[in-house]
Amino acid sequence: MNVTAGDMRFIRDALPFWQKLTDGERRLVENSLMARGYSAGDVIHNGSGDCFGLFVIKSGQVRAYITSESGKEITLYRLFDRDICIFSASCIMKNIQFDVYIEAMSETETLLIPTPVFKELNESSKAVTDFTAQLIASRFSDVMWLLERTLFTSFDKRLAAFLTEQCGINGGNTVNMTHEAIASDLGTAREVVTRMLRYFQTEGMVKLSRGKITVTDMKKLSDLAYSK
Amino acid sequence: MNVTAGDMRFIRDALPFWQKLTDGERRLVENSLMARGYSAGDVIHNGSGDCFGLFVIKSGQVRAYITSESGKEITLYRLFDRDICIFSASCIMKNIQFDVYIEAMSETETLLIPTPVFKELNESSKAVTDFTAQLIASRFSDVMWLLERTLFTSFDKRLAAFLTEQCGINGGNTVNMTHEAIASDLGTAREVVTRMLRYFQTEGMVKLSRGKITVTDMKKLSDLAYSK
Repeated sequence: MNVTAGDMRFIRDALPFWQKLTDGERRLVENSLMARGYSAGDVIHNGSGDCFGLFVIKSGQVRAYITSESGKEITLYRLFDRDICIFSASCIMKNIQFDVYIEAMSETETLLIPTPVFKELNESSKAVTDFTAQLIASRFSDVMWLLERTLFTSFDKRLAAFLTEQCGINGGNTVNMTHEAIASDLGTAREVVTRMLRYFQTEGMVKLSRGKITVTDMKKLSDLAYSK
Repeated sequence: MNVTAGDMRFIRDALPFWQKLTDGERRLVENSLMARGYSAGDVIHNGSGDCFGLFVIKSGQVRAYITSESGKEITLYRLFDRDICIFSASCIMKNIQFDVYIEAMSETETLLIPTPVFKELNESSKAVTDFTAQLIASRFSDVMWLLERTLFTSFDKRLAAFLTEQCGINGGNTVNMTHEAIASDLGTAREVVTRMLRYFQTEGMVKLSRGKITVTDMKKLSDLAYSK
């Protein structure tokens, strides 16, 4: 896809370090910028298998996840409009020694600063290095939150929080996901999800139907999710 | 404690960015450096409660851990001689939004670059910012390894790996820890650890005695730990 004048305005606004770049560095970004579109389910970044560069999300939603050898997955975090994806350029950071996968969750438009350009900026500009450190710290915080929730929170609260958040993201009171997909997201087995959802249903918090969960008592569900 | 000429030599050698500092920045480090000693069990960093600065470990061992509201703990990683502790200066990183606790595991000698000085270096020197980003990326990798192990590995393998690693750290074939302490380290309940250790004992891999676990078949234990 071609990069438009609107894309250029978007990128100047979305990159926190833009104002601190030299004219030469700005031209480097402008001349290398690429527009890329993805459909729901497309893999944007395939672990250490590729290293395209820094993706800036124009619109849509992506999720970052890890996988086990047996194919189990768990979602680390999600990114939305104007978020910036650092792991698609993680090959420039020698100390990132783990594989993250990134896929589009809906129609997603991105702008890409290719790896060689981002690497050059990261070497020449202190503002870019600061940005890189802060971005890694942000994702680290996301993962710590996940770790704490996984280790310290009982599964009923985690599932309640997940359903509440999904409704928040999509608007409305339905979650269109299979039990299998929820289990994958929360790093557990489908049976565990199904059992807990049935319990939620008997408690009047949700109504289950094929491939869909309707929240019928949002207050009760979010009280469970966020109570101590 | 006073900083010695030996400490100065140590710090010049231990800081990867030393060669790239200006003369003024080097004097700043030399004039502010502090020597601090800790005994086993001493808290070096108390979550967001304090922010002393960058600790460089001269000798000894520290562990970084998180705690739940109910007081449950889990160890994130351990640091040894010449390792550098960034979380004790995490207040300078606005995007680090979680609390890490750090305690000495044995007699530990450290050298401290106080927060105001580290902050100044991080602002003035691109080499220091690069170092900060790489150090955060390293700890992020440690935590990702922990997360993957916790989510994807069955508990028998995790406990076997823990015992193997402890023997590796201490040398020899004994682990002088209570079941309670191991449970805390692995983020589980004491009963779960006791049950699995008894199973390991019936399998001839360990011998249990009061406050001590002796590995009697290291090969079998590490085969279990690292098999797929």
